Amino acid sequence: MSTLVTGIGELTTQDDDLGVLRGAALVLDGERVAWVGPAAQAPPCDTAVDVEGRAVLPGWVDSHTHLVFAGDRTAEFTARMAGEPYAAGGIAVTVEATRAATDDELRANLRRLVAEAAAQGTTCVETKTGYGLTTEDELRAARIAAQEVDEVTYLGAHLVPPGADPDEYTALAAGDMLAAVAPHVRWADVFCEVGAFDEAQSRRVLSAARAHGLGLRVHGNQLGPGPGVRLAVELGAASVDHCTHLTPADVDALASAGTVATLLPACDLSTRQPLPPARTLLDAGARVALATNCNPGSSYTTSMAYCVATAVLQMRMTVDEAIRAATTTPAHSLARPDLGHLAPGARADVHVLDAPSRTHLAYRPGTPLTHAVWRKGTRVR
Amino acid sequence: MSTLVTGIGELTTQDDDLGVLRGAALVLDGERVAWVGPAAQAPPCDTAVDVEGRAVLPGWVDSHTHLVFAGDRTAEFTARMAGEPYAAGGIAVTVEATRAATDDELRANLRRLVAEAAAQGTTCVETKTGYGLTTEDELRAARIAAQEVDEVTYLGAHLVPPGADPDEYTALAAGDMLAAVAPHVRWADVFCEVGAFDEAQSRRVLSAARAHGLGLRVHGNQLGPGPGVRLAVELGAASVDHCTHLTPADVDALASAGTVATLLPACDLSTRQPLPPARTLLDAGARVALATNCNPGSSYTTSMAYCVATAVLQMRMTVDEAIRAATTTPAHSLARPDLGHLAPGARADVHVLDAPSRTHLAYRPGTPLTHAVWRKGTRVR
Ligand SMILES: [Zn+2]
Ligand SMILES: [Zn+2]
Repeated sequence: MSTLVTGIGELTTQDDDLGVLRGAALVLDGERVAWVGPAAQAPPCDTAVDVEGRAVLPGWVDSHTHLVFAGDRTAEFTARMAGEPYAAGGIAVTVEATRAATDDELRANLRRLVAEAAAQGTTCVETKTGYGLTTEDELRAARIAAQEVDEVTYLGAHLVPPGADPDEYTALAAGDMLAAVAPHVRWADVFCEVGAFDEAQSRRVLSAARAHGLGLRVHGNQLGPGPGVRLAVELGAASVDHCTHLTPADVDALASAGTVATLLPACDLSTRQPLPPARTLLDAGARVALATNCNPGSSYTTSMAYCVATAVLQMRMTVDEAIRAATTTPAHSLARPDLGHLAPGARADVHVLDAPSRTHLAYRPGTPLTHAVWRKGTRVR
Repeated sequence: MSTLVTGIGELTTQDDDLGVLRGAALVLDGERVAWVGPAAQAPPCDTAVDVEGRAVLPGWVDSHTHLVFAGDRTAEFTARMAGEPYAAGGIAVTVEATRAATDDELRANLRRLVAEAAAQGTTCVETKTGYGLTTEDELRAARIAAQEVDEVTYLGAHLVPPGADPDEYTALAAGDMLAAVAPHVRWADVFCEVGAFDEAQSRRVLSAARAHGLGLRVHGNQLGPGPGVRLAVELGAASVDHCTHLTPADVDALASAGTVATLLPACDLSTRQPLPPARTLLDAGARVALATNCNPGSSYTTSMAYCVATAVLQMRMTVDEAIRAATTTPAHSLARPDLGHLAPGARADVHVLDAPSRTHLAYRPGTPLTHAVWRKGTRVR
């Protein structure tokens, strides 16, 4: 079953050879992009959709979320807006609610947020465990997540559960818990921050995860300078996320490493932190991604478009840098070369904007601009 | 024809006596709110709508837009994001396109944006002339606007047309042009800024408008400190808009005057200006409104929710202050006591959020949260 997408005003392929095309068409066949080229040369297809001059780009790749949770932290948000600082400890509130929820409740909440994201053009979601913090609850989260999203990350080292001994818990997170969850995930992550896990604890969990064959991700440098970025680069992590507070040495390390700096501006705004130094990172040659960090504590948004608009308006990224950071670069950080671009062979994840140009993503901030979305070749909006 | 809105999780009435209600219901009858009270005591109605625990608030009142235009300024936006400063002169590009457009084209574009805003909960739009700058074109804009939106403002003094003599043009804008347009509008506005109209020119137009019985609005203190706020207060303007660069004397003047300070944060972000000093104004006792300033040059968004979220996350307004600033206060600045609150007798402009609480407007930034909208008692989404 092939579909011709025609009438494309501007096609942002995020493919180095194809670039941005005008007067182009796209053929989706099954779950894949089958053909990209001038509309006049398009092959015959089973059906056709005319997008009437709209801009088309790859679906967003949201490479950092925490969607397996229950409960709500509206009161904590309100207190923060009244001046209380954000602290990692709030995670424990969500842990308690998540443990108390049934599988069906967790699955329904996860599906709600994945669907909400898809309706805004997000066609790939990475999500993390980390609100279980027992072997059983982490395993449950990983299994539920694996049924619903593309990429799952083990985050047993999200917080030391209240009352637990930090080193004993670290041993569990790097030992039996990891061993139980590893078969269900491709990635492992650690919250390396004051109030969560220190450098030695983080290294222990990440090293063990690497030994299990998992790719590494790190939460680092969110609330202040710290060892997270350095450790991520040293261990060859695929991504280090937040990067709000960086030293020049951190920037240099990222610039010369393969580790992607994944910036989470909605989180910084929602916790009244400064915005991350995107321009400094890009100018130094680092690879930058943008993600929502959707979670009920520090960043409860599913909107990649909000992150893109914020990156352009407030972090001095260009529109093209921001789009790359929300498609191709996060796909790379997830080792998913089939995602984040539109070229023959790529997964048919297509985002049609209600706008003639991709620039409108920043030119029209806050305005919902998603017109249509295909994920794996299936129209989801 | 009466409609019972029931199942309201949280009803933000913006009425001083009613406050925020739980377990409440709302009756819409014709174009008005007929009844507000405990759900169990609701009177019989012709139909009922169960909003299933969602939060309900008055529709947004967007008290500052420029929607009678043609063309697009994507290229200027891109140049600005690459570092070029914003200047008033870009308005001339839109003037040229607007003059060249047919009535039908202008009407279609205006309707598109009003509908886009309504789909996001905006039930009252003020819009301005100002892309005509000839008597004929300003009159045309006012007539078209009056057919489509609640409140229309004459902004002949938006820019001195390229090539025109500033004082001669001011005389026209305060004379024959004003006289022609005044019967079609309730409000007059002046762009009092370097590159547009100076204090004496602004005073001349505003004084003449007042003599025609129009209420006054002023664009002031957008790009730097200036006489706009002072002049607005002196002349008893209903609102002075932008207020990005204020001196302590400006803040004092606003605090002791009836003039509303209408802040346009999406414009400040889109022109890389600082955000306005909302907290300072509120703490001093000034009345603060939020509006989109939707226009193709400096702020091309229709999203009041984006302004509200920005106000809370980045301007240190509370959620309740921001909601008031986006409903009741702008309604006041437009002399529309029937709008911006939900109490018996108010216009039936109702915004249902896909969220259990109004706090989600800031807690979930960028995520489209509009579930349903009634305007004048008619479901528009
Ligand atoms: Zn996170
Ligand atoms: Zn304006």
